[in-house]
Amino acid sequence: MKRIIVISLFISLTFNCLFTLLGGIFLAKRGGLPYLFDYLSRLTKNNSSPPSLTSPTYLHQTSQFELLTINNDSIIFLGDSLTAEGKWSELFANPKIKNRGIGGDTTIGVIARLDKIIESQPQKIFLMIGVNDIYQGVSANTVYNNYRTILERFHQETPTTKVYIQSILPINKKLVIYPTAANNQQISQLNSQLKQLAAEFSYTYVDIFSSLADEENNLKPIYTHDGIHLNGQGYRPWKEILAEYVNDD
Amino acid sequence: MKRIIVISLFISLTFNCLFTLLGGIFLAKRGGLPYLFDYLSRLTKNNSSPPSLTSPTYLHQTSQFELLTINNDSIIFLGDSLTAEGKWSELFANPKIKNRGIGGDTTIGVIARLDKIIESQPQKIFLMIGVNDIYQGVSANTVYNNYRTILERFHQETPTTKVYIQSILPINKKLVIYPTAANNQQISQLNSQLKQLAAEFSYTYVDIFSSLADEENNLKPIYTHDGIHLNGQGYRPWKEILAEYVNDD
Repeated sequence: MKRIIVISLFISLTFNCLFTLLGGIFLAKRGGLPYLFDYLSRLTKNNSSPPSLTSPTYLHQTSQFELLTINNDSIIFLGDSLTAEGKWSELFANPKIKNRGIGGDTTIGVIARLDKIIESQPQKIFLMIGVNDIYQGVSANTVYNNYRTILERFHQETPTTKVYIQSILPINKKLVIYPTAANNQQISQLNSQLKQLAAEFSYTYVDIFSSLADEENNLKPIYTHDGIHLNGQGYRPWKEILAEYVNDD
Repeated sequence: MKRIIVISLFISLTFNCLFTLLGGIFLAKRGGLPYLFDYLSRLTKNNSSPPSLTSPTYLHQTSQFELLTINNDSIIFLGDSLTAEGKWSELFANPKIKNRGIGGDTTIGVIARLDKIIESQPQKIFLMIGVNDIYQGVSANTVYNNYRTILERFHQETPTTKVYIQSILPINKKLVIYPTAANNQQISQLNSQLKQLAAEFSYTYVDIFSSLADEENNLKPIYTHDGIHLNGQGYRPWKEILAEYVNDD
């Protein structure tokens, strides 16, 4: 009896040590405890409703947007952090450009703040949204339907607005800080759908993806420090592509 | 002997259960596991070098700023997230305003990016920086010396620039999501020093603190969702105060 207990204890302890050791090595390679806590933090956040729409930052931004004036002369850049982090009115030296990007936003988030955009009947809208949907595991079908909702509202409620549907940008999973199930194949598939949707609504589809991707469809490392967002160099080709659409009448 | 082991085990288990129970209740009140992982994530990050200056977002922003043009006509808003999140050029309908706020920035971060600002010899600089220093536990003496470094460089290297030193804003610890040792007394003390420094350099000190604080010197809850950052309503009084300085010649 005693012997069995001792052997069981020994086996249990050995396995404990082994797994702890392997876990430790894995963790150290990934960046140690900060990585673990970050990862757990993201996991627990993603299990609840999307953080974007209820986070203080999101509420702060949307409430400021409510106070600001846009009108039928405005050029709206609508999207998530990739749009938000671009200094568009400075890049184009054009004060008509209004940045309406919010970090973490999704297709559902954009739908929730369409009223303010539509009531202003802006001159142009440059839309880029959806990578956070993919990140959060929203189904391709839902993203597609949300896009359709957005475009139908533009089409019916602000018919004189020129709408530009920008491709989602590639990511680089080797550089991504947080592990994600999202991949560039999903992004390319969504882009194909967006191109079709744009044609259906007679809106302009603008391919930014190809200019930022390497030959394996990954976001070029020279454009990013985190595999998703862009440094100044990354905004350059994006701006070049948009220039003809921003500046035309 | 057996009895002692059993009693020890019983005491040990009782205390374990008790502490687990108390810990669970405490955690549940604070927001459960997401709170714990967020808290641990912040703790481990703060133990290394300040996250702001090496984070991808910081590198992305600074590299974009390097590409953008500012000149001797520009009005620079220089600071941290509180500056970054304000749509200043829209709020004042003034395209000369360039937002050079970066989330998480500190006095050291501002010093590191002074060259680009100074070489443009801007018309005006509105500076608000320091609350992240206090958050990160940087000593009052160090913050003061960093401010002196910033102001001396402005004074000597861009003497025609009008510099406006804005007070640090109050926080509201009841609403703060992450526990912090920072408090409004520290912020008020720093503001007193900034007022003196401004006088010493013949720069204008602008008190924003008083307009956003309640009678107990806490950030008014109507202005914030997280006890630190501002919603649209919070940017209104701030803008009102700055209007005379932004619009004068």
